[in-house]
Amino acid sequence: MEVIFLGTGAGVPSKERNVSAIALSLLQELNSIWLFDCGEATQHQILRTSIKPRKINKIFITHLHGDHIYGLPGLLSSRSFQAGEGLLTVYGPKGISEYIHTCLDISGTHLNYPLKTVEINEGIILEDEKFTVHAKLLDHGIPSYGFRITEKDKTGELLVNKLMDTGIEPGPIYSQIKNNKMVQLEDGQTLYQKDFIGPKKEGRVICILGDTRSQKDYGEFVEGADLLIHEATFTSDKAELAQSYFHSTNTEAATLAARSGVKQLLLTHISSRYQTEDDQQIIEEAREIFSETYLAKDFSRFLIATKN
Amino acid sequence: MEVIFLGTGAGVPSKERNVSAIALSLLQELNSIWLFDCGEATQHQILRTSIKPRKINKIFITHLHGDHIYGLPGLLSSRSFQAGEGLLTVYGPKGISEYIHTCLDISGTHLNYPLKTVEINEGIILEDEKFTVHAKLLDHGIPSYGFRITEKDKTGELLVNKLMDTGIEPGPIYSQIKNNKMVQLEDGQTLYQKDFIGPKKEGRVICILGDTRSQKDYGEFVEGADLLIHEATFTSDKAELAQSYFHSTNTEAATLAARSGVKQLLLTHISSRYQTEDDQQIIEEAREIFSETYLAKDFSRFLIATKN
Repeated sequence: MEVIFLGTGAGVPSKERNVSAIALSLLQELNSIWLFDCGEATQHQILRTSIKPRKINKIFITHLHGDHIYGLPGLLSSRSFQAGEGLLTVYGPKGISEYIHTCLDISGTHLNYPLKTVEINEGIILEDEKFTVHAKLLDHGIPSYGFRITEKDKTGELLVNKLMDTGIEPGPIYSQIKNNKMVQLEDGQTLYQKDFIGPKKEGRVICILGDTRSQKDYGEFVEGADLLIHEATFTSDKAELAQSYFHSTNTEAATLAARSGVKQLLLTHISSRYQTEDDQQIIEEAREIFSETYLAKDFSRFLIATKN
Repeated sequence: MEVIFLGTGAGVPSKERNVSAIALSLLQELNSIWLFDCGEATQHQILRTSIKPRKINKIFITHLHGDHIYGLPGLLSSRSFQAGEGLLTVYGPKGISEYIHTCLDISGTHLNYPLKTVEINEGIILEDEKFTVHAKLLDHGIPSYGFRITEKDKTGELLVNKLMDTGIEPGPIYSQIKNNKMVQLEDGQTLYQKDFIGPKKEGRVICILGDTRSQKDYGEFVEGADLLIHEATFTSDKAELAQSYFHSTNTEAATLAARSGVKQLLLTHISSRYQTEDDQQIIEEAREIFSETYLAKDFSRFLIATKN
């Protein structure tokens, strides 16, 4: 589970930061990659990474502002040329479907794979065996969503040493124990799974918020997340500007993280008024409030380690 | 008058060549820049040049395939943030208006400048004091246009030495002669403009063709152009592929140039199957037919000199 930032700027691209896109690599977990937002030239950024577009099978759009969606038609279209044949699902606010289909239709683009668009509301928008994704409406002038991606807990490891101590040698019986609450041996002995399985592996939680004003009531939504990805369009001295443009500051993001038991905070969506020399200020102001704050740059990668 | 290639690839972006866009800098002539096609990330390419987006006041779209238009919404939108206040006119095939307005509307984009879209047909699509632009339908499966940009001839230079030899010293009289067919001096002498003006300055002609199959009947349209910009998606060994995909080869473009009295040929829209190491083959094959052939790369610049 790894987060790869493809674009960490706000509004317009700059030489340092492209417009928004975040890849969540679930290659280990699902053999696929999920994309969050797709600003213009996201496919160009991908060319500079090891990401294979055909592995992207879900795209989540936080909101419909151009710097979050203008790369979508190009990415969808190029995926056809890159052996992308599997279903791709795009989740986004109402309007995403018309946007995609108008662009593809007018440009005469035929995709070589099935494309599904899902216009979302608040609540659970996706649930499979391994993950649940919740969406929450944020405060941004137009509908903008935050996503809470919850990995389901996994069964613990088989306690091989304990089984061997009990005289049970490796064989098909091991997978029977792993998959059944109880197993009866040929000698009549009953084995209980709970006795031979270590503690369950707690799933990880990542929250990725779209553009938003800072709001106190986001606490519950991001509560206890292993990673919170939050916009920080402005520094703390521009709080009024942030408010009037429906954005947040670095310290507002840090305050939310500190109050909500979040483990780590990644700041992104940085206004192009800030250059590399401002990075330290952005980080340090936030760390005064929440020490586990990091600043995302284009192509930054963050591994989210398993929890036990 | 200078041509700056912003994207010289075909279909999908590669690390070497972005998708199509060509800037025609008319800063000397009109204090403005015209853009031909606007593939995704054209605004990103512009960031790496000295081009100011606010100077772009006309955009000509050859056809609606995604690799020629997906950069348009982002460029139009960013121009608002870059002090672009003057009218911008986009000329393109039927559908361009719906494409632009759907993208801007769904993304909630408000432009700070007036935007006009003109859906074109064959014939003269633009004429002002200095330039005429003709459009011609090409052979590309969907409507694809070629543009012939004709600079109008300009009055010749005032023959200052001859005026002084005639005893006429520099003063307001010089501009009277330049602007009137005949001028009467205070001593009753009549001066005829034709006697004191050098040969007229012949206007330059540039032809920029959109994606197209090679067609013999393009000869008249590109006749005598100072510069022909022609696609060369494939090399000569792929002529059948070119035909079936509605594209041209390098040698087909060279043949058109050779037959039509064109002065120089620039090849662009090169398939991503070709890498830098193939450049020499692309050029040399074409030069066997038309020696004044050049291969455009991203950020290539070509000055079109005045003719006399």
